[in-house]
Amino acid sequence: MLNIAMAQMEVLPGHPDKNTARILSLIEEARKKRADIVIFPEMAVPGYLLGDTWEQTSFLQDCESFGRDIIAASHGIVVMFGNIAVDWSRKNNDGRVRKYNAFFTAQNGHLIQPDNMPYPYVIKTLMPNYREFDDTRHFFSLQKLARELGTTPNHLISPVSLKIRDTRYSIGCLLCEDGWSDNYELQPFEVLRQNNPIDFFVNISASPYTLGKNEKRNRVFGWQAKTAAAPLFYVNAIGLQNNGKTIYTFDGSSTAYTKDGTIHAVSPEYQEDLAVVSLDGQNQRPASAPPEPPIAHIYRALHYGIRRFLENIHMKKVVIGISGGIDSAVAAALYADIIGPENLLLVNMPSVFNSQTTQGLSRTLAENLGCQYMVVPIQQSVDHTIEQLENTPVVLLKNGAESHLHVSSFVAENIQARDRSARILAGAAAAFGGGFTCNANKAETTVGYSTLYGDQSGFLAALADLWKYQIYELADYMNQTVYQREVIPQGIMDIVPSAELSSKQNVDEGKGDPLKYPYHDYLFRSFVERWQKASPQDILEWYAAGTLEENLGCRPGLVRQYFPTAQSFIEDLERWWNLFTGMAVAKRIQSPPVLAISRRAYGFDHREAQNGPYYTRKYLQLKNTLLQQ
Amino acid sequence: MLNIAMAQMEVLPGHPDKNTARILSLIEEARKKRADIVIFPEMAVPGYLLGDTWEQTSFLQDCESFGRDIIAASHGIVVMFGNIAVDWSRKNNDGRVRKYNAFFTAQNGHLIQPDNMPYPYVIKTLMPNYREFDDTRHFFSLQKLARELGTTPNHLISPVSLKIRDTRYSIGCLLCEDGWSDNYELQPFEVLRQNNPIDFFVNISASPYTLGKNEKRNRVFGWQAKTAAAPLFYVNAIGLQNNGKTIYTFDGSSTAYTKDGTIHAVSPEYQEDLAVVSLDGQNQRPASAPPEPPIAHIYRALHYGIRRFLENIHMKKVVIGISGGIDSAVAAALYADIIGPENLLLVNMPSVFNSQTTQGLSRTLAENLGCQYMVVPIQQSVDHTIEQLENTPVVLLKNGAESHLHVSSFVAENIQARDRSARILAGAAAAFGGGFTCNANKAETTVGYSTLYGDQSGFLAALADLWKYQIYELADYMNQTVYQREVIPQGIMDIVPSAELSSKQNVDEGKGDPLKYPYHDYLFRSFVERWQKASPQDILEWYAAGTLEENLGCRPGLVRQYFPTAQSFIEDLERWWNLFTGMAVAKRIQSPPVLAISRRAYGFDHREAQNGPYYTRKYLQLKNTLLQQ
Repeated sequence: MLNIAMAQMEVLPGHPDKNTARILSLIEEARKKRADIVIFPEMAVPGYLLGDTWEQTSFLQDCESFGRDIIAASHGIVVMFGNIAVDWSRKNNDGRVRKYNAFFTAQNGHLIQPDNMPYPYVIKTLMPNYREFDDTRHFFSLQKLARELGTTPNHLISPVSLKIRDTRYSIGCLLCEDGWSDNYELQPFEVLRQNNPIDFFVNISASPYTLGKNEKRNRVFGWQAKTAAAPLFYVNAIGLQNNGKTIYTFDGSSTAYTKDGTIHAVSPEYQEDLAVVSLDGQNQRPASAPPEPPIAHIYRALHYGIRRFLENIHMKKVVIGISGGIDSAVAAALYADIIGPENLLLVNMPSVFNSQTTQGLSRTLAENLGCQYMVVPIQQSVDHTIEQLENTPVVLLKNGAESHLHVSSFVAENIQARDRSARILAGAAAAFGGGFTCNANKAETTVGYSTLYGDQSGFLAALADLWKYQIYELADYMNQTVYQREVIPQGIMDIVPSAELSSKQNVDEGKGDPLKYPYHDYLFRSFVERWQKASPQDILEWYAAGTLEENLGCRPGLVRQYFPTAQSFIEDLERWWNLFTGMAVAKRIQSPPVLAISRRAYGFDHREAQNGPYYTRKYLQLKNTLLQQ
Repeated sequence: MLNIAMAQMEVLPGHPDKNTARILSLIEEARKKRADIVIFPEMAVPGYLLGDTWEQTSFLQDCESFGRDIIAASHGIVVMFGNIAVDWSRKNNDGRVRKYNAFFTAQNGHLIQPDNMPYPYVIKTLMPNYREFDDTRHFFSLQKLARELGTTPNHLISPVSLKIRDTRYSIGCLLCEDGWSDNYELQPFEVLRQNNPIDFFVNISASPYTLGKNEKRNRVFGWQAKTAAAPLFYVNAIGLQNNGKTIYTFDGSSTAYTKDGTIHAVSPEYQEDLAVVSLDGQNQRPASAPPEPPIAHIYRALHYGIRRFLENIHMKKVVIGISGGIDSAVAAALYADIIGPENLLLVNMPSVFNSQTTQGLSRTLAENLGCQYMVVPIQQSVDHTIEQLENTPVVLLKNGAESHLHVSSFVAENIQARDRSARILAGAAAAFGGGFTCNANKAETTVGYSTLYGDQSGFLAALADLWKYQIYELADYMNQTVYQREVIPQGIMDIVPSAELSSKQNVDEGKGDPLKYPYHDYLFRSFVERWQKASPQDILEWYAAGTLEENLGCRPGLVRQYFPTAQSFIEDLERWWNLFTGMAVAKRIQSPPVLAISRRAYGFDHREAQNGPYYTRKYLQLKNTLLQQ
């Protein structure tokens, strides 16, 4: 019986040299484990999220060169791997050289040509072009190739046939999206299944982690294996890849499905793994652990993502400004766990507006973590800044007229926030030999409830794809499961969220943020994460129909509790929509990279323009009706 | 003879209400001018660069609703316009509702169905998916539709036939990229021309300004008109659209080509225009002005782009930190010209390292412009920051060990830069009621020769798509042509570029930036702007072959002059490549939006990931060879 090695490797984007070295070593290992076939993920040689590196001729040549090394290493074992394939004689539609996202099968030093293909490799048919995916930008699809050749995709989509120990196998080879064809007019899996006897399927992927995605994949791929009555081997990469503004973890979770659609073997999340499974499903691996709550997966994604990101940018030390609030506390507990308390410097930066309560909670948190700690007051600097701004004469040189700037209390709030981050934290981080974090959550990020060059700055916004309720869940999880003691003081969980930038935000008087998280978390989520994004028109229609809470997924009764009248409801809606599509866009353009967790993270994943707020005709009509009632 | 009105309107992205109001008023105007047909640009109703607003159902409904108003206004005049078209019964490949980038033709209140189309509008066939273009992400192409319908694009691509004053016309309707088909396997223009008798062509576009693009378009479109022996009317929008990180001006320059391929009428750059031309080319407009130098076009793009951007974000006042160097001086001259000197506040912020020379030049510049001026020294604040960082004890709480941070001279340099921007300029801008600018040029932006939250910050980086040599050209142009007097003092042109952040950067001793602009401008340009991007391997191959200066386009002899040995050449190359693909990426992720001028601006136009520097095998071999010689 055939033994198949699923090589769930860590792919380093943009480093074909290191990836190839890893592939060659895993081929050796698979050979030792008596595997007949070893399967590597999609784009295992170059990595996947490379931006315009795909436009460098020399990089493409380099990937080809390393690909030849891998092919040469296929003696006595069949090697299946993803790499970029270049046809130097043809062009893409942008005039650049022709590139395919390709699936190579090598045996005894030679590539095996799929039955009906003009190239010695399988070409990706379906090109995802949503969220982080930009396949259409760089890669020429099988569909376009078919049109160019005057044939059909159905003809070109064909199995790879090869002989192992005198038995011939027909293998259905798919690349990632080829197996997710729900909304495409062409279904590569179905074409393969219907036109050919297939012994087994292989889906090589570079599929980033998204909360809840693996459950869906098991349904879809399990169904495929069952329908075809053939085993399916899904091999995904682990790793951390980014497109600048958004950072994705690749969780692996490679899975072997038996011909009846059940799961035969699963590789662990975020760990390299070389699972050798038999084609007939005999040597079944122990069943995977019982299902965990979503927050456990989120924690693992954050932990792996932060650790790997720090390694990638060679950062060993981190500075976090802690306020005594929940976001910075969760960040501190996470980073302490990853880099060790001696490499973590927590800085508390009180002004006259910071309560003894939050200063005490900050200190307790730092003590619980046992990390480096310093207290740097900012009042003297803030006073000096305001004094300089207000007392320095401004002269209009065309006529000599003199005036003075006035610093309002709102302006003074932002001066405090920038003083903390751009003056103290940035300086402290550089002197400490590291970077400082941005602790913004997704609700704040949505409406720009933050100061640019202040608390909106940092080298990474690791929590910016988590809603406030997820931050609290994570705090609980850290205490109960990760540390198994109260690292984050209960007082931090209980205190009202507040920026403490003025006397109007006094936590001891229960005053804090203008965000009503139990409602706004869910309202904002509908703006960003729904597949067809919600806008004020949808919100108002649901409100008028009495189905708002149901549609948003928040607690029933909340809306009436927070907003007794239609007018107060509409004022709140417009206030946040104006910010979300206005100033918050400007802030996000300059904010740090976001670690993606949800099905729609900010950055490159949620495309937006500085076009200002807009209200549709229907919205304005409905608003009018509601206000007149 | 038919009269055709080319409505070069200003399109506001994301504001179909305002665009439709403008369209309806221009229809009226065209009717008064006795036009038979009035043509509006591509996506004239919704705008073009909208990001994920395309995913809002309510926005799509709204655009449809406004489209119906336009159709209803087509009595007595044929109205051609671009809008989004939605087929609510079908889906895109991402599972979202089906959207087409469509060309509508309305007459007497009804849409005219193209001869072989299943919809009453023309669908864009070629979907650009490079630089700022993301058509494939949002819009379903005619090619995909043909496949879905089981027919060919050649069958669906068909003229729009209509009768005006008892004569029947067959019109070839194209959307932007449909006319730029060089690298596509399908050529919509050729399909139309070869299959049908066409009376004239109409290309509606949403085509951003790029230096040199209009010359190419005149060649391509003039050739099309001549080949088809039919007039061609190219109607482009003006306006400012952005995708967050990069801001594009749309220059209009709508052009009528006669059937012999000559230019019949041209609308001015960046101005609304309703040119009425006759189909036979009789009422020729006065020939356009003599060709201008590229810097004149660049100036116009900057002037329009900055003005429009300020209007869009409702910003009337601007603060600029001026150092006595060329970049901030050019920025000051530009903004003074746009918003008036009374709305411009220049701030000079000396430390102990700033020379009397540059302080005097700053004052002279401000006097020449007659704007608001203030001098805010930073030394006291910088000293206080360093003192706080160095004297505050850092305690490792797990064992009580105490240590102190040390502020190196490099760390102190960045503290100065952040003190200026995040402390003074941000505060001054807020108190002045405006924003502050980022004055970085493209060479600095390429290698991150700047401080994050320092000189890398601001609300807009208007000069960040100009190389240093273009900044000098612009300074000359401003003095000679715009102001016609020496606004930017000659001393600023002559002084060595320097950050003046330490005694090692003393301008009076001729010490300044590590960048050798006459070479690095061109080296960096090859990394970013070449269609197939250059990497160290290409650079070293050219260097070894003695063709480097020729390939880069810089002055011959420079390389040997700057780098006497291969070793010094390679050290310089690696130094900047490491920064370009390393720390500079992290800085660009958080830098302000860039106003695009070149064929490849930073931001959304140049996709990049934080993947770190990489050197190919061939590069390493060649380097080895060169160093051993």
